[in-house]
Amino acid sequence: MHTTQNAPPVLSIDAKPYAYSFPLQHTALLVIDMQRDFLLAKGFGEIQGGNLEDVQASIAPTKKLLAACRGAGMTIVHTREGHKPDLSDCPSSKLVRQAATPGNTQHNLVIGDKGELGRLLTRGEYGHDIVDELKPIPGEVVIDKPGKGSFWNTTILHKLKARAITHLIVAGVTTECCFATSIREANDRGLECCGIVEATSGYNDTNFKQCSLDMIHWSQGLFGFVANLQPLLDALAPLATHSIATGSTPPQTPLDFDGDLAIPSLQKAYKNGLSPVTVVEAIYNKIEAYHKIDPAVWIYLESRDNALAAAKALSVKYPDRSALPPLFGIPFSVKDSIDVAGLPTTTACPPLAHVPSASAVVHDKVLAEGAIFVGKTNLDQLATGLTGCRSPYGIPHSVYHKDYISGGSSSGNAVSVGAHLVSFSLATDTAGSGRVPPGYNGVVGYKPTRGTLSFRGVTPACLSLDCIALTTLTITDARLLWQILEEHDPLDPYSKPAIAFERHINSIGPQSRSFKFGIPPQEALAVCSFPARRKFNETVAQLQKLGGVLLPIDWSPFKKAGELLYDGTFVSERLASLPDNWLEQSRSVLHPVIVELMDAVVARQSTAVQAYRDLQLKTLYTRQAEQVFSYSATGIDVLVVPTAPTHWKIEEVLADPIKKNSYLGEFTHCGNVLDLCGVAVPAGTYPIKELSRVEADEGELPFSVTFLGGSRMDAEVLEIARRFEESIKSDA
Amino acid sequence: MHTTQNAPPVLSIDAKPYAYSFPLQHTALLVIDMQRDFLLAKGFGEIQGGNLEDVQASIAPTKKLLAACRGAGMTIVHTREGHKPDLSDCPSSKLVRQAATPGNTQHNLVIGDKGELGRLLTRGEYGHDIVDELKPIPGEVVIDKPGKGSFWNTTILHKLKARAITHLIVAGVTTECCFATSIREANDRGLECCGIVEATSGYNDTNFKQCSLDMIHWSQGLFGFVANLQPLLDALAPLATHSIATGSTPPQTPLDFDGDLAIPSLQKAYKNGLSPVTVVEAIYNKIEAYHKIDPAVWIYLESRDNALAAAKALSVKYPDRSALPPLFGIPFSVKDSIDVAGLPTTTACPPLAHVPSASAVVHDKVLAEGAIFVGKTNLDQLATGLTGCRSPYGIPHSVYHKDYISGGSSSGNAVSVGAHLVSFSLATDTAGSGRVPPGYNGVVGYKPTRGTLSFRGVTPACLSLDCIALTTLTITDARLLWQILEEHDPLDPYSKPAIAFERHINSIGPQSRSFKFGIPPQEALAVCSFPARRKFNETVAQLQKLGGVLLPIDWSPFKKAGELLYDGTFVSERLASLPDNWLEQSRSVLHPVIVELMDAVVARQSTAVQAYRDLQLKTLYTRQAEQVFSYSATGIDVLVVPTAPTHWKIEEVLADPIKKNSYLGEFTHCGNVLDLCGVAVPAGTYPIKELSRVEADEGELPFSVTFLGGSRMDAEVLEIARRFEESIKSDA
Repeated sequence: MHTTQNAPPVLSIDAKPYAYSFPLQHTALLVIDMQRDFLLAKGFGEIQGGNLEDVQASIAPTKKLLAACRGAGMTIVHTREGHKPDLSDCPSSKLVRQAATPGNTQHNLVIGDKGELGRLLTRGEYGHDIVDELKPIPGEVVIDKPGKGSFWNTTILHKLKARAITHLIVAGVTTECCFATSIREANDRGLECCGIVEATSGYNDTNFKQCSLDMIHWSQGLFGFVANLQPLLDALAPLATHSIATGSTPPQTPLDFDGDLAIPSLQKAYKNGLSPVTVVEAIYNKIEAYHKIDPAVWIYLESRDNALAAAKALSVKYPDRSALPPLFGIPFSVKDSIDVAGLPTTTACPPLAHVPSASAVVHDKVLAEGAIFVGKTNLDQLATGLTGCRSPYGIPHSVYHKDYISGGSSSGNAVSVGAHLVSFSLATDTAGSGRVPPGYNGVVGYKPTRGTLSFRGVTPACLSLDCIALTTLTITDARLLWQILEEHDPLDPYSKPAIAFERHINSIGPQSRSFKFGIPPQEALAVCSFPARRKFNETVAQLQKLGGVLLPIDWSPFKKAGELLYDGTFVSERLASLPDNWLEQSRSVLHPVIVELMDAVVARQSTAVQAYRDLQLKTLYTRQAEQVFSYSATGIDVLVVPTAPTHWKIEEVLADPIKKNSYLGEFTHCGNVLDLCGVAVPAGTYPIKELSRVEADEGELPFSVTFLGGSRMDAEVLEIARRFEESIKSDA
Repeated sequence: MHTTQNAPPVLSIDAKPYAYSFPLQHTALLVIDMQRDFLLAKGFGEIQGGNLEDVQASIAPTKKLLAACRGAGMTIVHTREGHKPDLSDCPSSKLVRQAATPGNTQHNLVIGDKGELGRLLTRGEYGHDIVDELKPIPGEVVIDKPGKGSFWNTTILHKLKARAITHLIVAGVTTECCFATSIREANDRGLECCGIVEATSGYNDTNFKQCSLDMIHWSQGLFGFVANLQPLLDALAPLATHSIATGSTPPQTPLDFDGDLAIPSLQKAYKNGLSPVTVVEAIYNKIEAYHKIDPAVWIYLESRDNALAAAKALSVKYPDRSALPPLFGIPFSVKDSIDVAGLPTTTACPPLAHVPSASAVVHDKVLAEGAIFVGKTNLDQLATGLTGCRSPYGIPHSVYHKDYISGGSSSGNAVSVGAHLVSFSLATDTAGSGRVPPGYNGVVGYKPTRGTLSFRGVTPACLSLDCIALTTLTITDARLLWQILEEHDPLDPYSKPAIAFERHINSIGPQSRSFKFGIPPQEALAVCSFPARRKFNETVAQLQKLGGVLLPIDWSPFKKAGELLYDGTFVSERLASLPDNWLEQSRSVLHPVIVELMDAVVARQSTAVQAYRDLQLKTLYTRQAEQVFSYSATGIDVLVVPTAPTHWKIEEVLADPIKKNSYLGEFTHCGNVLDLCGVAVPAGTYPIKELSRVEADEGELPFSVTFLGGSRMDAEVLEIARRFEESIKSDA
């Protein structure tokens, strides 16, 4: 039976029109526009005639509220109203309306003009920033908004969905303007809001504030709820259980490391005083021990001394343990097709190796948030393959059994996480490279929608289909990394815009446990091994128990798109990024399977006409797949597939390397062709003998399912996958 | 000097905080949610406990307001709150919050439940529709919105921008909820709003209404303006000058047709009683006369009898002249690569001809709005060419001179509009086919962003680059047609989603006359003829006079993208939609120039690897071009180019058909490769002798400039082009 013992608490407080209940894990504090420009003398608000007395009085209650929410580990979102220095995001009406008042004497300065706190409501200026008392700490979300509402022309909805937020506790200024407008917007988008009386105020007499709050809860909650501060503080107080060490008074004796590398566990331990040096020492001991079990994991291992130096530098840089960046002291590895400045990028193909002067964007981003680089991991040569058996640096094996493949191309990558040598790994995915290896090593493999993470600084396999993938211990870790890494990169031609069309906060929120899913038809699942088939059926039953509704789907676009990837001209793109004569020149130093594969591609003599036909088909199948996912009565939220149909032994792959490889992509190939997002999630294990049919075989192998969603439906897919993961762990 | 004699009026009325000024042409009336469900007994509002007395009292004033705005020819927008029948667009919070009230006895029915007016707030139900008194008439915009705000998850902002609306007069229910929320949203997006006191009301006591209105105009216009109804009615009354004939009392003598085929002129004439039969008779007389001047315009001409029958049927179908669909009685032609059910689609290539059973989506849409089909026009074979000299159906010539080319591929198309035989024509554009011919015939050629108009039912030239183009007499006509035709088509794989990221109502609004533009560098313009060069310089000066600021740009992505189109592998896609052996089989029946061209494509033996390289370059150049257009201090709003660098004689093209053709695409080729939108606009004429250098040559030739914008920036591009057109006509 599904247990809920680990389910996070749902709190309830007195409110109007009735008690406001909120699931802590899905609730964010939204603090609106507590900027110097609105709260301090000589700021924009005062210049426009605002009376500061009331708004300043809201700072202290908001500070208490912020501390309580931080203590409870809630998501915190701050907004700042303001404009780009060139004012290109400021409509002309906003710029001139007040100043255009006939006989105007009051509005002598407008947005962008220089005041005593800097240019008014202009990003980067002193007055534009949040008051000292409420300053955001690292890891909190700060939304710069050009409007009074928080949702127009910002990424806030996307960021809330990415964190699976469905409830908002709202504070800030001014009640009648940005506070009330943001609550109205949030309510339309399906967020359950509760405004906190003492933590909001306005410039006008009390009538505007009272009336604005009354409208929110009128008619049994026209826009949401309104509550007083104290009941909320009382409800949150018991949750602030962990002591918060301060940098100035470190614990007298170093804290022990319990070995848990999951990011929230490490975050909590670091907050309580654990030293990153302790963690680095521990994982290097493990890495050395694991080298004897599997020497093929790393292509480059950072020295223990360098990693320790990085750990020490972090402690110096962040003395305040209550304000650490989200990846402070989190160890990670990098697939060796991703650039790290000063180290060779080999792509497991020494003749292609180069030493980049700059790191890949994703590498820089995790470093900037405090992560500790441990090394570069092995991969199938040219990131081409799903087995892990195509590298001159050796063949890593599954962390579950030495005879079974690790999967590829991100082989060492998945092993480094699966063996708990690092917390996460940066990988790539073209045909399934970021999903299959995590599946074979009992960890999470998340392939965000292509173009939402920068691919700059990565050696391409098939540029128009490549994307960054994240290997992590849990869905929660994958989601956190995604939030850190996701950003439009104008210098990456395949990067997607930051803001896309957004659906409302989905019906997958806590208000409803129901979701709709599809699976491949029986004839497609027939390729699976017996245990994969059994475990997949169990997964379907588990999802139904979780409230999932299984709907029939049209499988053909997924099937045909998968066939396009290897059987069509798309493989030709693997040669497109290389010089014309490269294959001939490099033949002697390439892995023999790669030579055989590339020779086959060349032998096809694919024409440009064929390529354009394939691309037209890709467009057609993508549209057909969109229809399967479309948000309607007949569309599904996620497509659930086995990550791989079976688990080969290394010797089986070596005996028949190309066929055994392509067999594994049955359920992954379509992912990037159709611009899907996907996450592979551990779904239990099965006895090896069930696969090998040899009664004497001992041990277990992992089974993995992949949740696939439409383009940019990452938030929905991750939330369903997280529930599944939670239920699997509860049942275990 | 630029005259303003034709500029539409700017009105001003008493309001709070000060007089509200609004340019009539840029102002819409927004009527919020005047639905039976909110206003009538047994509707959603009453079931939820709303007092109907006040809201019902707002119907009569709103009716007066609506009549006055219609009389003044303003854009009218109605909204309806409600949900899809499957409620998939209804957040769970909205569905359950009221009903979840502890001890709830009031909210027994929720959204989607069956009430006496049908399912509550559900699209398609009786209660969901607008009350009879305020029923929308054809051509008015109706926005179905899932939220209380009108802007969340709707196309309203896009539609307002498409109509160059910058000001909103706002009415509707309820004041505290959807009315006030929509004004706040509109204000953030840069729209100048004025709420009308008598035309809005709420369910609550008067405090909510008063307070909501006070917040709008507080602080010299926090969200906008508030005015009483009477001053507005007084201001609009003088504009309702044209008499409105009613269907039941037709004029005793048929009105004369003044020959003006521009859509607004015909709309006005029809409203005043002109019969479409009169127009059809007149244009068939013109078509017959023009046949003697140029027999190569039409591939198929609808019979006069059929067209007359269509005209008569329209008059029967729409007896009420005050409520005509926007294209009532507007004659149009269709390029013969676009399907019309029952007629052969030849693509000027008889061996490819087929008789479709269904018409293209765009054809059906204009018919549904009352347009009258006149015939199918000549084109360059396979829609391949820019000259108009590649058709077995003859060579149309420019309406300006019989020796000069009409341009192609949409040759007959542009001539049919340029010779005033029809009001508009449906064309296509791949490499410039929808821009060059209008440029050579003194009319407007608009190529909307690819994928925003359905391409279904059109024979492809190069499918991934093809799009529908519109040939019209004015920018206003092009904009109107775009509004009618634009719609996401899930069955067209290349169709773009309906809602994309939107910028605020642009600074190109009436508040600011300034805009930023770029032009090709001098070395690129050097290909132009002397008169083209001179006229282009005059255009630049004219744009600067209009407030345009000329900024330097990086021309290289546009140049390189243009070269990709003909010099790279993209031409191979022209063969991708045809069977493999088609060229060999059809050789003897094809136009000799097309054979030569296709042979050259085949001879290149382009490989798939080359195709993928070209596509990677296309992606790179597209990103680089986006940067040129990006909305920042250094980005431009439009790129202005000569539509064509020169104007060939027919004999010049026949002597050197391929080179002379590709020369003409210098400034059009990049358009679809980079996913731009563009509109070619007449920019005066020049003496033929200036081009031919033969003093004896008489007559004038037209010059045309094209305004290009980034993907989906159609609204901005059209508005700048319209201002240019207005200034050219004023100066003329």
